[in-house]
Amino acid sequence: MPAWRKLGIIAGAGELPVALAEHCAAEGASYFVARVAPFADEALETHPHDTHGLGEMGARIAAMKAAGCDAVVFVGKIPRTDLRTLNWDAGGMAMVPALAAAAPKGDDALLRAVLDEHAKQGFVIIGADQVMEGLAAPDGVWGKHAPSAGDLADMRLAARVAAAMGTFDVGQGVVACAGLILAVEAQEQTDAMLQRVATLPTDIRGGASARRGVLVKRPKPIQERRIDLPVIGVRTIEGAAAAGLAGVAVEAGGALAVRRAAIIAAADAAGLFVFGFTSADLDVT
Amino acid sequence: MPAWRKLGIIAGAGELPVALAEHCAAEGASYFVARVAPFADEALETHPHDTHGLGEMGARIAAMKAAGCDAVVFVGKIPRTDLRTLNWDAGGMAMVPALAAAAPKGDDALLRAVLDEHAKQGFVIIGADQVMEGLAAPDGVWGKHAPSAGDLADMRLAARVAAAMGTFDVGQGVVACAGLILAVEAQEQTDAMLQRVATLPTDIRGGASARRGVLVKRPKPIQERRIDLPVIGVRTIEGAAAAGLAGVAVEAGGALAVRRAAIIAAADAAGLFVFGFTSADLDVT
Repeated sequence: MPAWRKLGIIAGAGELPVALAEHCAAEGASYFVARVAPFADEALETHPHDTHGLGEMGARIAAMKAAGCDAVVFVGKIPRTDLRTLNWDAGGMAMVPALAAAAPKGDDALLRAVLDEHAKQGFVIIGADQVMEGLAAPDGVWGKHAPSAGDLADMRLAARVAAAMGTFDVGQGVVACAGLILAVEAQEQTDAMLQRVATLPTDIRGGASARRGVLVKRPKPIQERRIDLPVIGVRTIEGAAAAGLAGVAVEAGGALAVRRAAIIAAADAAGLFVFGFTSADLDVT
Repeated sequence: MPAWRKLGIIAGAGELPVALAEHCAAEGASYFVARVAPFADEALETHPHDTHGLGEMGARIAAMKAAGCDAVVFVGKIPRTDLRTLNWDAGGMAMVPALAAAAPKGDDALLRAVLDEHAKQGFVIIGADQVMEGLAAPDGVWGKHAPSAGDLADMRLAARVAAAMGTFDVGQGVVACAGLILAVEAQEQTDAMLQRVATLPTDIRGGASARRGVLVKRPKPIQERRIDLPVIGVRTIEGAAAAGLAGVAVEAGGALAVRRAAIIAAADAAGLFVFGFTSADLDVT
């Protein structure tokens, strides 16, 4: 029994908002999509929705209230934007001081300020994994391939680096191969990071015939977990496969898997493992 | 008065080995270049030299001994290579166990093992900055542009992230802009990192008309400082300019500046600062 009557889905870019809206529709839940233009997918137009720019906070909140929403979930990617370049409406303008104060403290601080401003408007803030059971990454081996001892060692190394980076509010992804850190994600996003791993010398990475190395995604230690959890999807598996990696590891409960069955099918077909690690898996051996 | 009679310059890729050989020639110093194929520059063939593959340690050491070298300096980039794929000669093969044991511990451990093996052969290991006065990065403002207070704040943030990464033997470069980490370098090298900063949304980075953000390069905390110190050259300035950065900061004494006058001229012309920071500059303000 959800703790809300009608859910406002504030939708940025990517597959996750679409998957979430489809889930709500399939469940017969009461929902309304607030598309953030120009990022949100066009497929969302088939759902009950309205569309506003990032700075049109007033119009967006008014639309969600008019639709009867008492709770909101933030899903999908919104690129880091210079607040000075946005078109703010009056409702948005009223939030600018709080957002501008938070922005220099980093992505996480800015997101918390956005959540706070919506909470002040009377919305309950819901995590995407509360809306859609099975969205949160489970622990253990997901598909038919399992990590080797060497893969697990690379996973532990990459997970430690990701945690160290996360304390600086940096990225959520790290690639390690045979004890060497190949790439660290910052503002370029995971897909671009995997693309550059694919261009590194084959001496230090794997390939389709001999897969080596692991992509790890995990939340920052300071992460606001109701928003901006790491996300993996089929494209993550495709990128990892193209980079010659042996697999993808995410923190169990600390990442969202969009269309998990499709992720597993893609990984099984390409010969990659997908693994949800817990703190027990990170113990130094 | 140098502490060696004849210097063996073990030369990898890039400008630094060429600059060092030219310096030795201009000084009338006694030197011999051991080019590491296929990485070392062709310009080195005009100097007293011999050429060997990375794994031909025996031939290289024999050539340096035959030339009368009693000291060696390691300069230039050698890409991370899978030891199993190298062509080893007998002398190299004898070093494989030590190198193979060190390699999984990271770049720095591997480099230390290489130095140790050369020291065992009777060579004194010399840092490039001992050979060429003025190569080590000086402190303070180098050219006609100085960092702003905001640039210094970005420099401090990037320097802290670089130190945190360095404890994992990762990269030496970080780009920060207005409090946000834009990019972290791992195996792709600095030029590639700057290229991807240039492709980030202009909202979160600077441009030619309004420069913002800083590239910081500094040694890893565990760094073997006789080898593999961070290097900047004119290309670093060009890459930083193309990425819209306001400047480049390096740890004074902890980085090498190849052709410093040309670096300063390029930075002055493009409107970038170049700054050598000390621990005093990193104090939290």
